Formats: sequence, C-alpha cells, structure tokens
Amino acid sequence: MTNTQVTHIQIDNYGPWTVTPEPRREVDLQTLQSRLYADLSQLFGNRDGYVFFTRFDNMVAISNGIDIEAHELVQESVSNRYPVTMSLGVATGRSPVNALGTATELLQEAGSAQDQHRREILKGRPIDDEFRAEDDIQLAHFDVDNATEKYTDELNEFDTFINIEQGYAELMQYMRRAHDSLSFFVGGDNIIAICPDLDREAYRDAIEHVKQAVDVQLKVGVGRGASASDAGMDAKHALEECRADGKRVEFAF
Amino acid sequence: MTNTQVTHIQIDNYGPWTVTPEPRREVDLQTLQSRLYADLSQLFGNRDGYVFFTRFDNMVAISNGIDIEAHELVQESVSNRYPVTMSLGVATGRSPVNALGTATELLQEAGSAQDQHRREILKGRPIDDEFRAEDDIQLAHFDVDNATEKYTDELNEFDTFINIEQGYAELMQYMRRAHDSLSFFVGGDNIIAICPDLDREAYRDAIEHVKQAVDVQLKVGVGRGASASDAGMDAKHALEECRADGKRVEFAF
Amino acid sequence: MTNTQVTHIQIDNYGPWTVTPEPRREVDLQTLQSRLYADLSQLFGNRDGYVFFTRFDNMVAISNGIDIEAHELVQESVSNRYPVTMSLGVATGRSPVNALGTATELLQEAGSAQDQHRREILKGRPIDDEFRAEDDIQLAHFDVDNATEKYTDELNEFDTFINIEQGYAELMQYMRRAHDSLSFFVGGDNIIAICPDLDREAYRDAIEHVKQAVDVQLKVGVGRGASASDAGMDAKHALEECRADGKRVEFAF
Amino acid sequence: MTNTQVTHIQIDNYGPWTVTPEPRREVDLQTLQSRLYADLSQLFGNRDGYVFFTRFDNMVAISNGIDIEAHELVQESVSNRYPVTMSLGVATGRSPVNALGTATELLQEAGSAQDQHRREILKGRPIDDEFRAEDDIQLAHFDVDNATEKYTDELNEFDTFINIEQGYAELMQYMRRAHDSLSFFVGGDNIIAICPDLDREAYRDAIEHVKQAVDVQLKVGVGRGASASDAGMDAKHALEECRADGKRVEFAF
Repeated sequence: MTNTQVTHIQIDNYGPWTVTPEPRREVDLQTLQSRLYADLSQLFGNRDGYVFFTRFDNMVAISNGIDIEAHELVQESVSNRYPVTMSLGVATGRSPVNALGTATELLQEAGSAQDQHRREILKGRPIDDEFRAEDDIQLAHFDVDNATEKYTDELNEFDTFINIEQGYAELMQYMRRAHDSLSFFVGGDNIIAICPDLDREAYRDAIEHVKQAVDVQLKVGVGRGASASDAGMDAKHALEECRADGKRVEFAF
Repeated sequence: MTNTQVTHIQIDNYGPWTVTPEPRREVDLQTLQSRLYADLSQLFGNRDGYVFFTRFDNMVAISNGIDIEAHELVQESVSNRYPVTMSLGVATGRSPVNALGTATELLQEAGSAQDQHRREILKGRPIDDEFRAEDDIQLAHFDVDNATEKYTDELNEFDTFINIEQGYAELMQYMRRAHDSLSFFVGGDNIIAICPDLDREAYRDAIEHVKQAVDVQLKVGVGRGASASDAGMDAKHALEECRADGKRVEFAF
Repeated sequence: MTNTQVTHIQIDNYGPWTVTPEPRREVDLQTLQSRLYADLSQLFGNRDGYVFFTRFDNMVAISNGIDIEAHELVQESVSNRYPVTMSLGVATGRSPVNALGTATELLQEAGSAQDQHRREILKGRPIDDEFRAEDDIQLAHFDVDNATEKYTDELNEFDTFINIEQGYAELMQYMRRAHDSLSFFVGGDNIIAICPDLDREAYRDAIEHVKQAVDVQLKVGVGRGASASDAGMDAKHALEECRADGKRVEFAF
Repeated sequence: MTNTQVTHIQIDNYGPWTVTPEPRREVDLQTLQSRLYADLSQLFGNRDGYVFFTRFDNMVAISNGIDIEAHELVQESVSNRYPVTMSLGVATGRSPVNALGTATELLQEAGSAQDQHRREILKGRPIDDEFRAEDDIQLAHFDVDNATEKYTDELNEFDTFINIEQGYAELMQYMRRAHDSLSFFVGGDNIIAICPDLDREAYRDAIEHVKQAVDVQLKVGVGRGASASDAGMDAKHALEECRADGKRVEFAF
C-alpha cells in the first residue's frame, strides 16, 4: 500500500508581483523561477524528497520523510534569499491525487493565491516516522523509445518538442484519470509519475493508450521506496534494464 | 516583415551522460538543468535575447542582435562552469519555424545529439547589424483568463496544471501548423509565441481554436521590436491593456 | 569540553585546471568559485554545518553531525554539477586547529593538491552520534564596533576595507596562536571563530590585542551547541545583546 | 595614462536587514552574499567589467565600458531577484584610488549605508565612449611562488591560509599607500590589483616589500586594455610567462 506525502508549494501573490508597479523583465522572471526551483530541488532533495516544477509559481513536492520543522526551514530559507515568499500545504494519502487534493485545499482555505495578505502559510500533517514504510512511494520513470534517432536527429527542435509534449500531455491526463497518478515532465524525453499501488498491467495500459492516441512509444521503469529518492533511483535502474533488454515495463521490486 | 534569428542550444551527448557510469541522482540533474537554463537566460538576456527551456537538454533562443563572438563567449562560459558542453546552431528567417529548422539542421549535419565526439559545435550566421530592423521580431504574450479564480483557487494543483497544459499543448500545435509560430510555456498561465508577421485575425483565430478544442480561454498582447527583449516588454504592456479593458487581442504597435 | 569536527574541502588539481589549455576567463572562475561555495553552504548548512570560503579552492567546514554517507553525497552532488571535483578530509579534536591539522594530513597523505591523479578522496572519521554533546562546538561571532559610522560612511570603500581586513588579519593570527581557534571573515564587519573551550578572559584578551595592534575595536557573542548552526545562532543572539547593552563580550550559556 | 572607471556597489541597509526581526541563519546569508557576487560577476563580466567581492555587502567593480543604462539594468535585475536592493556610485580617475574615493562619496552624500530610506541610488558619470582608450586600465595579477609545494601540501589549511592572507594584507596596504592601487584577493593564492600607470620598478618594489615584511614571495603579470577583461586576460598570460621563465615581473605590453 502506498502512502504518498505531497507538498503543494505556492509562491504568494506571484502574478500581481510580476507586473507591479509595471511588468518586470521576462529574463529576470525566468531566472528567478528556475533558480527557485533549483534551490527547492536541493532543499527537498537533501532530505530525500523530489520537487517538480509544474507551473513554477506552483510546484509539487513528494516529501515523505520531511517533517514540519524541515518545511519551516525551507520556507524561511527561501524568504531569506528571494524577493518572494511561498506557502506550503502538506498532506498524505493512499492515492497521490488525493494527497495533493488535500494539500491544495489547505492553501485554498487560507486564502486566494493572489491574496496579498496571505503569506507563508504552512499547514498540514506529515507522516510520523513510526508509520513510514518501504512501499510508501511508487515511482515510475518513463522515457520515449529512440527519441534521439526518431526525433532529435531528424526533425527541427520544435517539432521534436511537439512530439514529446504530445506524449506527455496524453500520459499526464490518462494516468491522472485512469490511475490516480501525478505525472511530471522532467526534461529530455523523461516523465516521472508518482503512483498508487499499480501493477504491470496498469503501466502497459497507459503506454498502449499513449501509443494509440498520439503515436508516441513509451517505456517505463518502476521503483518503490520509503522516500522519493529511493524509489526514484530504483526506477532509473529498472528503466536501464528496459533499455538493455527491450522490455516496455520493468519493476525494480 | 519579421526576420527572426534563432539559436538552437543542444547539450552535447547529454542523455548518455546522465546514466554513465550509472544513473545520476535526479535532484542533481534537475538542479543542473534549471540552473543552466537560468544562466543562459541571463547570458542571452543581457544581450537582449530570450531563451526558452523547451526540453532543457535542447533549448531555443531568440537571438537577434547577438553575434557569433557573443555566442562563442556564452559557449565558453558554460563549459567553464558546467560538467557538460553545448552546441549552438544559429539561423534566421522570415518565419521562426524555418529559422529554427535551419538552425537544427546545422547541428544535425555535424553529428548526432548523442555522438560522443561531436562537441561544442558553433555554426550559422547571425543577421548583420546593418540589416536589423525594428520589426524583426513579433512576439505574442498569452495568458489564461481568470486562471487564479477559475483554476488555482478551485481545483487541486494537478488538475489546474492539466487545464493550463492542455491549453498550451493545443496552442503550440495550432500556432506552429497554422501560423508558423513557436510557442513556449513560461510558467504560471503564460505562453510566449515568436511569430511571423501575423495580424489580429490570426491571433483571434488561434484563441478561438483553443477555446473550442479544450475550453481554455486565452488573451494575448503582441509586441514588435529589433530584439526579443524589446518586443517582449511591449507585448507585456499590451497584455496589461487586455487585462484593463477586457479585450482578447491587443497590439502594442 | 569541545569536540569539533572539521572537514577540509579541497578542489582537486584546481590551479592547473584554471590555466589549461590556457587561462580561463576570470569572471567565470569567480562565478564558479562563489557558486560552489554557496552550494556547499547549503549542502552542509542543511545538515546543520557551516562552511567558510577561506581561499575558495580550499574551504573549511565545521561538520559536527554530518556522517560519511552525507559527505559522500555532497561530493557526488558537486561532481554531478561542476566541471571540477573535490576531496574531503574529516577529523575531530578537542582543539579546532588540531582537528583541521588531522583533516589536512588525510588529504596530503593521499597526494598533492595538484596531483592530477588524486581525485575525490574521502577520508576520516566523524563523531559517532552517541558521543555527540551539547558543548561540542564553541563559536564566537565578532563584529567591529560602529563600523558603519566610523568607516563605511566616512572613508572610501577600500580604506574601510583595509581597516576591517587589518582587524581580521590580526585576530585570525592571534586566535590561532594564543587560543587554538580558527577565525573566518564572513562579510561586512563580521568574523566567526571556532574555538576550544575558552573563557571570557580569553575573548577579552583577543579583543584587547587587536585594539592595541591595529586600533580596531571588536566585540563578540559566544554560543555553544552540538552543531555549528546551533552554536552560531546562539552567538548571534549574544552579539545582539552586546549591541543592546554596550558590552564587549557576551556568552549565550 | 590610465583612466579607471570604478563602481562602488553597496547593498542598501544590509546590516540591519540581517538581524531584523531577529538574526537570520548564517548559511542563508552566506548563500545570498556569494550568489549576489556571482551574479554581479556575470552581469558586469558580460559587459567586460570585473567585480571584486571585498566585504560582500560592499563590492568594487572596474566598469570601463559600462554606461549608466547598463548600471540601471544591473540594479533592476538584482532588485527583481533578491530580497535586498543595492546602490551604485560610478566615478573615473587617473588613479583607481581617487576614482573609488569619488564613487564612495556619491553614495555617502546620498545618505548612510544604514539609512533605511536611502534605496537604489545610482549616481555618477561613466567615461564617454569617445574618450575610452587602450591604456585606460592597468591590471596586475599576482600569485604566490610555489604556494602548493610550500604551503598547501605542507601545512594545515589554516596555517596555509594565514600565510596567503598575510601576503595579501601586506600587499593591499602597500600598493594602496605607495602606488594608489586597489588590490583584491580572488581565491587560491591570487591577487588582482587595479593600478595607475606603474612601471616595472614599482612592482619589483612592492614584491620586495612583501617579501621583507612577511616572507611571502610573489610574482606578477601585468596587462593593459580598454576594459578590465582585456587587461585581465593579458595579465594572466603575462603571469604564465613568469611561471615559464622564472621572472618575478612580466608586462604584456
């Protein structure tokens, strides 16, 4: 049984800030956003969590093993070093989607994302250490079969990107609807999905769906662990086995 | 008449590097990728260009005004500070898609993206200063109407993201196919498109298409300039006018 | 009784790298060095340690509470994200100077700092958790009395800097020779010293020495803790008390 | 005849900010300071300038070729991405010390470094392009003879640092007093000095003085250029010649 702990990270009142008193230079916003994401990757990553950039002003972290004090420290570290602050909602659940649903609600109840008086909310309940287990996280690392040969070395970069993006857009929706999973593009031709306790058949189904819908061929390695980093590294090794033996779905456990 | 200069940025042999001798920790890859993007944003941005993260291992820059020497310096600065190197293809064209097509071909002709012996290619021809003009770039800044009220404050963050992502996936394909434009998600509910010389009707058409296809309501501000940063700032101001007066399409020129 | 754990961080073969095949641009070296230091500050800091930039190619960390596995991860994270690697020597001792002496020897025994075949050494023994204690670290936070009024707002910035630097140069030597302490300039008019079990009289003596030798008036707050961050935060609060009540030496314990 | 343009960079009201409402975590301050320095290195460096970290809350840039608009952009870029702002004073002079003196005065006249109402001052006059010349900057790059063999591989890191630091403290004071030069430690065993029009004898004198005073043996390469980056790269090459032929002073011009 999985038990995913999810943190919804939301920059406070970010939209209005980007245009007040007048629009800020885009290159600075891009630099700010991507560096904030890089820092959060390290801040959560050094505690065995994963962060996904999602929309950059809203990010999603898989935070099993990270308690409220650590969340406070992350929040403080950001406010010490950035011109913006962020709010955090933390929740857990058998299904990653439900966990995120609760995490988001904690923030929504505290006020709008564009409420200038709602700042540095920190709400929610991490999993107590005694209840953590080796199968809390199931993480699937997908990539596109022969992406370099088929796309990167053949099409212009935007058309390659359209293919990868279509594969992602289709997978993210299908995995969310059919399998209560959260799927995130992580660069190149890689997608990482945080899943409930799915079996091989579920992954075969998702890969088949994407193939049928947009003609993009995926494969996937699946890992399990008490933390995102453990499950994620296992998934990477399983994906390497796919590459080696030509399989479409490989479980590390 | 637009005359877009595009730089295709490709990390050399990146995929193999990420798994050699065995898979590298995902948080480090995420940090590396997003910081490299942030640095390129500044390196091009300080020369009035824009960079889009696209797939992170392949990025697209709008580089009008940036000559070959500056490209060399950017390439060298990255190799001085990162464990990876990158190749650059530079090309220009009336249509951004054609320009990118040529830029990509310059890299493809030099070898595969995963050829371990192809390193730090720099090919192509920037626009000579004497031929630069105030209408070289047409840049459109889209956002989603009432995204905070309709999505962020109402749905869980992933379902919000699905809506934004669907809007983006639809727009990027339509603008590429119907209008030879390159559209990039830049965070939040914002999309920036680099366009040929399009009129208001073309933008209305694209917005209508996205609304019909996936029920996401966009609006857009359009700017023009000799550089991405000039056109981009004008587009932002035009988008602010949309916000103020409720229009769907606003031109800054 | 203090028990300081020190990590000597040394970039492998850095000098030769900076001039091979020919001298690299200074701004890139400065960026590389200061970002590596910033990253190490976070990597150690997120585990309650402190890092001091010292000479940038060699840095000193106070690493109580950070085990060998964490050191490995820090080492790997740097090699995943930088064009250089680093070696680490870890040692402990009643006296910070002795601890650093042992840490440095571990690296020296493995080869020269400019031996191109000596890479990513990791040697030494952290303190086992069961032997850690609340008084393992004694940390002193010095600053210069009225630095803004007396120097910054009165002299040109270089002459201000000469005064601060003279105060630092004198203190670092005296504290090392007379009190077996390691003192580091941390910006502004601030110096942090890692000390053995010193009493108030020792600090009064050091402050008096600096005043006599170079006419720079210091004050100091002293903290104690099982980690650098605990001791450091206590020292800051003690220094705030000095500011409030005009004392020259304040202990937080 | 040299004509050095100097920018005094001062973080506004930084000291009070670091302890309000209570002391901020030192690792965050260190990260903030070193990243701000890294960013300024790139922002000025991409325009052929050099920045020196000095005290981190006050920095000194050699900014020949960087006009007021570029200074404005740098100032804005920092305020867009950091929780602090900075003021800039720009001045020029035959002597680097005089130029910095004027630059500092521009800030002092606008208010105290700790005046909470003095924010983002930008004052001063860059050199007009028509008056720039190839010998505007004279830059000397010193290092310590055989630092690795004599210190790094023999002493504990702090005692090595004491030797390097003593050499620097002595050189910085002597070069300022005797030769109107600004000398900055840049890591490792390297010191960069910005000088007026000095001859070989002046450098021999300074090296001899440091040798006599603190028994640290320096050598130096000297470059000249219209910008810091040009003069700096020439100085590096000259220093490489010193290494090759055993000379103590080498001019690139």
